[in-house]
Amino acid sequence: MAKGITKRSEDYAQWYTDLVLRAELADYAPVRGCMVIRPHGYAIWEKMQAALDRMFKETGHVNAYFPLFIPESFLHREAEHVEGFAPQCAVVTHGGGKKLEEPLYVRPTSETVIWYMYGKWIQSYRDLPILINQWANVVRWEMRTRLFLRTTEFLWQEGHTAHASMEEAEEEALRMLNVYRTFAEEYMALPVIVGQKTELEKFAGAVRTYSIEALTQDKRAIQAGTSHNLGQNFAKAFNVTFLNKNNELEYVYATSWGVSTRLIGALIMAHSDDQGLVLPPRLAPIEVVIVPIYRTEEERQQVLSVAEKLATQLRPSLTLKLDDRDTVTPGFKFNEWELKGVPVRVEIGPRDLEKQQAVLARRDTGEKRPVPLPQVRGRVETTLEAMQQDLYERALAFREANTFPVDTYQEFQEILAEKGGFLLAHWCGDSACELAIQEETKATIRCLPLEASEEAGECVRCGKPSSRRVVFAKAY
Amino acid sequence: MAKGITKRSEDYAQWYTDLVLRAELADYAPVRGCMVIRPHGYAIWEKMQAALDRMFKETGHVNAYFPLFIPESFLHREAEHVEGFAPQCAVVTHGGGKKLEEPLYVRPTSETVIWYMYGKWIQSYRDLPILINQWANVVRWEMRTRLFLRTTEFLWQEGHTAHASMEEAEEEALRMLNVYRTFAEEYMALPVIVGQKTELEKFAGAVRTYSIEALTQDKRAIQAGTSHNLGQNFAKAFNVTFLNKNNELEYVYATSWGVSTRLIGALIMAHSDDQGLVLPPRLAPIEVVIVPIYRTEEERQQVLSVAEKLATQLRPSLTLKLDDRDTVTPGFKFNEWELKGVPVRVEIGPRDLEKQQAVLARRDTGEKRPVPLPQVRGRVETTLEAMQQDLYERALAFREANTFPVDTYQEFQEILAEKGGFLLAHWCGDSACELAIQEETKATIRCLPLEASEEAGECVRCGKPSSRRVVFAKAY
Repeated sequence: MAKGITKRSEDYAQWYTDLVLRAELADYAPVRGCMVIRPHGYAIWEKMQAALDRMFKETGHVNAYFPLFIPESFLHREAEHVEGFAPQCAVVTHGGGKKLEEPLYVRPTSETVIWYMYGKWIQSYRDLPILINQWANVVRWEMRTRLFLRTTEFLWQEGHTAHASMEEAEEEALRMLNVYRTFAEEYMALPVIVGQKTELEKFAGAVRTYSIEALTQDKRAIQAGTSHNLGQNFAKAFNVTFLNKNNELEYVYATSWGVSTRLIGALIMAHSDDQGLVLPPRLAPIEVVIVPIYRTEEERQQVLSVAEKLATQLRPSLTLKLDDRDTVTPGFKFNEWELKGVPVRVEIGPRDLEKQQAVLARRDTGEKRPVPLPQVRGRVETTLEAMQQDLYERALAFREANTFPVDTYQEFQEILAEKGGFLLAHWCGDSACELAIQEETKATIRCLPLEASEEAGECVRCGKPSSRRVVFAKAY
Repeated sequence: MAKGITKRSEDYAQWYTDLVLRAELADYAPVRGCMVIRPHGYAIWEKMQAALDRMFKETGHVNAYFPLFIPESFLHREAEHVEGFAPQCAVVTHGGGKKLEEPLYVRPTSETVIWYMYGKWIQSYRDLPILINQWANVVRWEMRTRLFLRTTEFLWQEGHTAHASMEEAEEEALRMLNVYRTFAEEYMALPVIVGQKTELEKFAGAVRTYSIEALTQDKRAIQAGTSHNLGQNFAKAFNVTFLNKNNELEYVYATSWGVSTRLIGALIMAHSDDQGLVLPPRLAPIEVVIVPIYRTEEERQQVLSVAEKLATQLRPSLTLKLDDRDTVTPGFKFNEWELKGVPVRVEIGPRDLEKQQAVLARRDTGEKRPVPLPQVRGRVETTLEAMQQDLYERALAFREANTFPVDTYQEFQEILAEKGGFLLAHWCGDSACELAIQEETKATIRCLPLEASEEAGECVRCGKPSSRRVVFAKAY
């Protein structure tokens, strides 16, 4: 157990907070519910941004920037939207020393202001599609906050697209859902269930909301990204029409989709351990740390000379840190880089020099192996690849071991209480039944999985017929 | 003259606004003084960010993120700072449906909240230096706004560093000033004067402010970046001390430095013309556009086949657009890509095919030349390099032709009225004299240039002795 970090088995929530603070990923800001993302945490976000931004551009999207402030009246134009968001907004009432005529809402999401602008830009089908993404900060006044997972201000990206048909909008919403799934699997090493939200859980103003849902080590669901088919709702609210190919005026079709700094929380809860952060190599700000070991000045010079040569060999292809600090011991360095989640550590001491070798230590398994110096570079690369793959496989096995088909309400309640995890159960489709289950068990429907097969059954609570299982869980 | 764009010679301010709107760089937002940065404008910002971020990291800086909201009381801790910034802040008074106990200011700049956090993180000299940068949005309630140049909300980066000595802080402030100068010259093709601000013009809370100052085509100064040595002012305001190497408690030394989306305005005003945007190739979102020319379907197929082959050859090293739209004429395409500032256009028509050539057109000079097909790639690359260099040389020559040493107040006023530009004049160092000149002529002291040589003289207004010339100009 790392110094100052509660064990997961003792108190998972406290472990998480200790880890975030001690690994210097984030800190509490002086404003209620806000956080400071410290350099080590922000470097992970930069890696995430780079990968996602590339994937967005490969699917034809461009970036833009819309204003932080939204006139109060804009939120009121879409009935569900104002009901969902207005109560959690921060409101600017004064600017430049004067009271404003109309209060400004700090954006909780940008559909309204973006659709106002799309109204200025769209006249005909030739102006469509618009495929815009924005990287921005948003504010939602949360009552109970937790670093990264739920904060009053957070960073995210929000895609907002405009289309000439409902089919195209649906295709786009599913395309971006799939981009999120690919990112979660291939970069975060995080298996996710892809599905549709229920009416109760969908985005305020959407026709359909899709999400990716992951499982944390303490067997709760965590929503890691959402994609919405907004139909014509926002186009109608902002009167955005286009002349279609038949020369008829029609309201434009919309999607929006987003992921946020919450992903960092999901990442931590997927792989990390009592020693600290465990990061999939593709998102690690530092992939390899070299720690020289020596006692005398002569040893120091010999070891450092080899360490530096090794660093030069590795640097072109890898992000590397050579930790040559004189003020702390190698043991202190091991702990620190384990805490901070560096995937591979290379140790070199005088005895290694004699054997012309270095010792490779792998962060997730703790495995240590001597490697002949000329083979270090290749071995580091294969270890990183193996670790990326193994983290995914382990998380997938964990999820599978904690996914339970349940057929009775008693079984539902027992497994939820004893084991947690994902419960696959039949549900009648009625919001009243969904709400009752939530009140009685604290579990919510995470999604109607897109890849579930048809299967006749009875609602786990009311017994009415159901054609497929949905995913229940307690969620973050 | 491009359609819908006022000529520069008619009305420079209107030309600028027309260009920004017509080239789809930005648009007016529905909130007073705010803008929307459209994809073409944002793509320029992304290029700027990538280059600057790389330069910041090469000089040892890391990124982080601090909160948008600052408690009202924080601004009041530094006397000059609150006086300078509080009157232009947007103020959040309500959150989550309730009135807040303490109003929150939307950050106009982040020194206060960052130094509050540094107080939690810094104990000893071992924790120093801290070299953090942040990419963020800030809000300043401006009375008179102009797209990119002065908007209520804008995007910027703000570096905030903490040091163990005044010398180190000074070195850092000058290092980053030099990074800005290099960026302006090498990427923006923009010559700048590097200098120190007067007491009147310095940042609220700084010991010394440095800036880079460029000259626009209408012969006004534009401040393009600032770097501040903040001394111990913010450390004292937030009680941030460190144990130095002599085991004594000392207040920490600080710098801050920033550039913003205003750079895009400076870029436009440096190089663009009556046809539209002219971009230095290193900041152009699209470096080359290929326009196929044909009349018959047979010609279309032949020309497109060669155009596509050419595109494939150029794409690995260049950002390229093959404009194969059928709905508009080649002439329309020429105008559109000129308006949008693509540096090099490659035209291919049936007669070119016969001669196994293409025609290269260069955006800044309008020069058109046939080039044998196998040489197109090389010629495009040398043309881009030449254009980058020529834009700088031309801007430098323009600045030199519009920089005037003046020795009497009459000469000062005459040249300012007749020619504009940078006036190099002696000044006594007294703020009263500086203010009087400003009131009488509308010219301000842009900076005390760092590279000016000593030269005895007399203040252009009051006749008191002066040891070097300073730079006066009317400014944006």
